[in-house]
Amino acid sequence: MSNILIRGVTVLTMESHDSVISDGIIAIAGDRIAAVGLHNAIPAGFVAGREIDGAGMVALPGLVNCHTHAAMTLLRSYADDLPLMKWLNEKIWPLEAKMQSEDFYWGTMLCCLEMIKSGTTTFADMYFEMNQVARAVEESGMRACLSRGMVGVGPGAGKAVDENIRLVEEWHGQAGGRITTMFGPHAPYTCPPEYLKKVIELAARYGVGIHIHVAETKDEVQQIQENYGTTPVRHLDAVGIFEVPTLAAHCVYLDKGDIEVLAEKKVGVAHCPESNMKLASGISPVEEMLKSGVMVGLGTDGASSNNNLDMMEESNNNLDMMEEMHCAALLQKVACGDPMAMPSFKTLQMATSGGARVLGLPDVGMLKTGMKADLILVDLRRPHLCPQHDIIAHLVYSAQSADVDTVIINGEIVMEGRRVLTIDEKKVMAEAQMCADRLVGK
Amino acid sequence: MSNILIRGVTVLTMESHDSVISDGIIAIAGDRIAAVGLHNAIPAGFVAGREIDGAGMVALPGLVNCHTHAAMTLLRSYADDLPLMKWLNEKIWPLEAKMQSEDFYWGTMLCCLEMIKSGTTTFADMYFEMNQVARAVEESGMRACLSRGMVGVGPGAGKAVDENIRLVEEWHGQAGGRITTMFGPHAPYTCPPEYLKKVIELAARYGVGIHIHVAETKDEVQQIQENYGTTPVRHLDAVGIFEVPTLAAHCVYLDKGDIEVLAEKKVGVAHCPESNMKLASGISPVEEMLKSGVMVGLGTDGASSNNNLDMMEESNNNLDMMEEMHCAALLQKVACGDPMAMPSFKTLQMATSGGARVLGLPDVGMLKTGMKADLILVDLRRPHLCPQHDIIAHLVYSAQSADVDTVIINGEIVMEGRRVLTIDEKKVMAEAQMCADRLVGK
Repeated sequence: MSNILIRGVTVLTMESHDSVISDGIIAIAGDRIAAVGLHNAIPAGFVAGREIDGAGMVALPGLVNCHTHAAMTLLRSYADDLPLMKWLNEKIWPLEAKMQSEDFYWGTMLCCLEMIKSGTTTFADMYFEMNQVARAVEESGMRACLSRGMVGVGPGAGKAVDENIRLVEEWHGQAGGRITTMFGPHAPYTCPPEYLKKVIELAARYGVGIHIHVAETKDEVQQIQENYGTTPVRHLDAVGIFEVPTLAAHCVYLDKGDIEVLAEKKVGVAHCPESNMKLASGISPVEEMLKSGVMVGLGTDGASSNNNLDMMEESNNNLDMMEEMHCAALLQKVACGDPMAMPSFKTLQMATSGGARVLGLPDVGMLKTGMKADLILVDLRRPHLCPQHDIIAHLVYSAQSADVDTVIINGEIVMEGRRVLTIDEKKVMAEAQMCADRLVGK
Repeated sequence: MSNILIRGVTVLTMESHDSVISDGIIAIAGDRIAAVGLHNAIPAGFVAGREIDGAGMVALPGLVNCHTHAAMTLLRSYADDLPLMKWLNEKIWPLEAKMQSEDFYWGTMLCCLEMIKSGTTTFADMYFEMNQVARAVEESGMRACLSRGMVGVGPGAGKAVDENIRLVEEWHGQAGGRITTMFGPHAPYTCPPEYLKKVIELAARYGVGIHIHVAETKDEVQQIQENYGTTPVRHLDAVGIFEVPTLAAHCVYLDKGDIEVLAEKKVGVAHCPESNMKLASGISPVEEMLKSGVMVGLGTDGASSNNNLDMMEESNNNLDMMEEMHCAALLQKVACGDPMAMPSFKTLQMATSGGARVLGLPDVGMLKTGMKADLILVDLRRPHLCPQHDIIAHLVYSAQSADVDTVIINGEIVMEGRRVLTIDEKKVMAEAQMCADRLVGK
């Protein structure tokens, strides 16, 4: 790992709206940022093994995708727009029975490839066969926070916990520190209180967090109300889950009291607007959460077609965080009836520093001295980014993932000039297609 | 103009959901499609001056953008997320006073460049200085339906009509038939009935249609109710506007009776979901319109930041129809509370054949013999389009404009391998930036 110096670049440090440096430099030493600033900020004696010309580009923290089910990328656009039970019975369950270890590996590699090419440097995954997932993360060069999806009822409940423990023991802190882990109880309606309590105890013992789906649909809210006489958030609070760091995915249906609990207990929320739209789940009160001091990050959810695969909801068709930002801002404006809701800087914050906070990564998500060197260069020399009035608005409202030119993760150049250096792109696409063909019986 | 033969391509003819041809050919003679089908469909004696290898690509009709204010692309991301009156008083009005003819030309050229690069082959524009707009359309090779935006009150009302007449007389049917024209009265709340009647008479006399904003905001509905005791749609119907072919932009606030009128009078609707979201205008009942037989096309609206420039609403930040399709489908699902609402084929239809219908272009919008040769090739060999299960779902939910490889309009290759052949990309971006800098006083 040699030192890197990026010159002549516009830098969005994401410390505040005004932290924009024109014709700036970023010095990277090892896996960390050594300096950010004007030319004179280069540390005395700093020797760069690699220089990158940042002219025409903007540097910003790598995007953080707070909620995915990576391997399901294999089922992208497989059986879209179908009613749930038809989709499950005729499409997904027969297919699921056929999934093998290699499918999880190639599915996750495809996911990492797509994420790198769209500027994502960190993701939070909840799925199965996490050994394969971790292997793909290690090879791709990405940063990830991994959890084993656990359903607390049925014959697989105990095995799931054992696998999550193994994931934590074997992979936490591995891959040069790029991998962290959490426990992944699926949701309040699939994990009974006793099961959740056991998981909370394990998370506390291992010193890791919990990743869980919360208040995603009206049905869930109704079911929890019937069974426990309260809301999903307050039920989870009563069970004690928020005593450990929690990443709560979705949080679509919340009342005022729920939002207070989320803020007070410092719960991190993974907002997934495209998934919530695609599944017609609803619209999360993100503006209200942010105003109440809740930590919110952005996520794509899984890139499959409909919801519910062995109780995992996946419901986007891509893992494109540039697009997710765009939708997050527009959806919140129309939902709030206020064109000033969710302005561009707040949206970009959710996708960078906000995401890092909800994943418990204190040294990720901003470009400043001492932080991990996770950053992307976006090429602004494109017709749809011309003329240049407001770069932050451009990134949120106009840019697309194909504008991402360079990706650096943990001080390593992972993509340059849109060529991914850590992954054999053609091979991954071919292997993923073969896995998919076998699964659907082609 | 030499004959073109595209080989080995997957073809979506858009005649029906099942009209997908694998390893197909498209033969183009002059400005029209001579044949579409398997290899044996090539007409006897057809000699191609140019062959295009379509392997790995899907061919579909070029996208039709039904509502834009092209030249406003110069103000993209200028002063986003501001309240309306602050935006108008401090930002837009001072700037508008400075706009010169060349700004309209370069703004429209930039718009055409962005549209071609994102797969749009036809657009419907309503703006000023339409001579400059028409010039840009002619040079860029695009197909367009142009109208002069007319506000029916104030000192400019008469001049606007004169300019629209001149546009129709000078440009209708020009540029090899690529340019058609309409009259562009701005909206029911800015054009009194007598003014509208005069415009209707002119449209009927010249045999062209009318392009107008309708029922875009709650305020408009209230104002029309107060002044005329009815809804915007029924008010316009009473004035007689729907007796000529009408392109009604937005149609966000409609009751059951309005939808019946739109269907019965064969009014074409330009649905602009991203603009309606960005301005927090509301959500158009598109599913209901389509079920009631209303013709609906898709539009981006202008690529500026907020609404209301001399009564023109513009409120998207790009002219990207791939993204617009994506948002249209997702927004309708969450608004209807139904994941099966607005499925991918219906969405793609809105963006192609549906758009052509609402612009009154009977020989545009499908790939079949005799139609105008307006088509695009989208490269499917991308990680975010892998694996390939359902190409139509891929195009609507996963593809992005950078996947568009080749654009053919009126039988001419306008873009190939993402290189635009009709426009000097760097020059247009530089000129647009200079115009923008002068306007904002840099």
